[in-house]
Amino acid sequence: MKCELHRDTITAGGEAVSELYDRGFYGRRKDGGLELSLIEGAYLLYRRKIEIFSRNVSLDFKTFFEIASGRSKDFELRYIVFKDLRERGYYTKMSPIGFRVYPRGGHPGEVPAHIFVYVISERAHLPLKNLIQELNRAVNARKRLILAIVDEESDITFYEIKKITMSGESRIEQEEVETPAIAGLVNDRTIIWDQGMSDFLHSGYFFGRKLDESRLQLSLVESGYLLGKQWIRIEHKDVADTDTGTFNEYAAGIEPGYMLKYQVYSNLRDHGLVAKTGFKFGTHFRVYKKFKADTHSEYLVHAVPPDYVFALPELSRAVRIANSVRKRMVFGYSDSGVAYVEIEWIRL
Amino acid sequence: MKCELHRDTITAGGEAVSELYDRGFYGRRKDGGLELSLIEGAYLLYRRKIEIFSRNVSLDFKTFFEIASGRSKDFELRYIVFKDLRERGYYTKMSPIGFRVYPRGGHPGEVPAHIFVYVISERAHLPLKNLIQELNRAVNARKRLILAIVDEESDITFYEIKKITMSGESRIEQEEVETPAIAGLVNDRTIIWDQGMSDFLHSGYFFGRKLDESRLQLSLVESGYLLGKQWIRIEHKDVADTDTGTFNEYAAGIEPGYMLKYQVYSNLRDHGLVAKTGFKFGTHFRVYKKFKADTHSEYLVHAVPPDYVFALPELSRAVRIANSVRKRMVFGYSDSGVAYVEIEWIRL
Repeated sequence: MKCELHRDTITAGGEAVSELYDRGFYGRRKDGGLELSLIEGAYLLYRRKIEIFSRNVSLDFKTFFEIASGRSKDFELRYIVFKDLRERGYYTKMSPIGFRVYPRGGHPGEVPAHIFVYVISERAHLPLKNLIQELNRAVNARKRLILAIVDEESDITFYEIKKITMSGESRIEQEEVETPAIAGLVNDRTIIWDQGMSDFLHSGYFFGRKLDESRLQLSLVESGYLLGKQWIRIEHKDVADTDTGTFNEYAAGIEPGYMLKYQVYSNLRDHGLVAKTGFKFGTHFRVYKKFKADTHSEYLVHAVPPDYVFALPELSRAVRIANSVRKRMVFGYSDSGVAYVEIEWIRL
Repeated sequence: MKCELHRDTITAGGEAVSELYDRGFYGRRKDGGLELSLIEGAYLLYRRKIEIFSRNVSLDFKTFFEIASGRSKDFELRYIVFKDLRERGYYTKMSPIGFRVYPRGGHPGEVPAHIFVYVISERAHLPLKNLIQELNRAVNARKRLILAIVDEESDITFYEIKKITMSGESRIEQEEVETPAIAGLVNDRTIIWDQGMSDFLHSGYFFGRKLDESRLQLSLVESGYLLGKQWIRIEHKDVADTDTGTFNEYAAGIEPGYMLKYQVYSNLRDHGLVAKTGFKFGTHFRVYKKFKADTHSEYLVHAVPPDYVFALPELSRAVRIANSVRKRMVFGYSDSGVAYVEIEWIRL
């Protein structure tokens, strides 16, 4: 079937509607004929379903591919993803960020698309803001948002992006402590010297880690949080009986990302979750919905600033680890309150 | 037993030699008495084996701990590691970077220490140069080098650092290609349009990934490498029949870390290894000793510059992933040729 290349579309006559649209849902009907995108054109050319002419010259695949990749941003990436989806039985339509995808077994006109696929190169930088924007768009349209990352060898990895509400069952009662315990600040951690309070904080709420039978060490975020709750006082020659603001400033001097972590940590604790360091997993926190002996944490949570820009290999690494230990990877960011986004590796 | 605190040592009389040195190998003999480090002192104070006096005042644990952590860098970190090692049956002696550790069941004077333990906070930045320097020192002294990273909650993770020679069985013969294949440059990858050459490169040597039955895509490093071997020519409007230098410059413009990756990639290929993207693992390469269908890669290799500084959560993440997929984590750096360091998570 003869088609005609224009700037960034390909047109065909009426017989294309019955052969390509009615049978394969390629392109869109226009003026009695069919209009194809460059990507659809490349795929149909590869499948030898069409011939593409430019000024009466028939273009071979190589020539067409080179022309199209010069005209359309990320053409080669989208072509790779389009081909993959089509060949695995998904009908797809073009969208500004990639594709709208229809459920397997369903087709355009019969069922609505259920997924927005966002195509991106592993080399691209992905601002959190853009991701949230696309996620809002998808949520409003009742679609799932799926990121299709094309690596340097043209392999595709799919990630589903979801909003998530974090909430657990270990709420802290405000009333319980009458006299704050003294926590001695030793460089980048504090030590509760009192045995009773050490046991209360550790056994009761899983704060800190025992230095030995009678003493408890707290991390900086734990210390900041408990200081805010007035469960502890912090003692140190440079930081005399201090308020949370002063302590947080001190802590931020030791650990540049402290404030970010502190906000997310406090939000998690306030919502009944138990957050402990995620160092062994390369993230800020591992998070429990409820703490009992022998429970496993359900989430890995990493705190990022609202203007964060994902490097995709890093995102891949974080999700991969979470997956390997059967936890869910969540990014927490502060945006008039703390919000959470879950990123899950999926097979589409 | 009474001991006396000095600036950064603690001394005790002759009876300490028989009680602490002969039975526990604490401290070192000096002038008929015993000299303990601050860390040993804190541990023995906690164990109630000694009393520590300063100007005739007996110090309690809290007071001593605060004094010592003000006088000795990373005192609290080293104390945590020392206590952990001692309580798990290892004799240890102080060293500038942490401890010399004796094999379980052996003790100082009887066997040599077999491990150098390098104690470091998860918040510290670890220059590759320092790591290599300590590794050389350990290798020269016939010791193993083990990194003990103390996280913000005082948990310790141990990593063994090793030099490693990378070598595989998939050597490339220079002679095989008479006429270089044409590879079309499309943004950040190239495409071999010729079917014969596509099959030869892909099936024979596991270069690239098939775009479809007859075309092969190559990544930038693969393209650079094959261009250097004169197996391909690269065709593009902006980069006319180019030499490796020009192409590498173009590639480095697209991917800032290209040259680093290219050096390590070329070195691996030259040594008979097959390197493919490690994107799914968040590293530069997954590496096969030999490529056959259904083999798994044995290494994850990440290329870093010689002046690289490790952020320890990142190191933890990389090693964790490698571990979860049963691969070995290797960092490649260029230093008059390319050298490799393996980092392995261990239980000490």
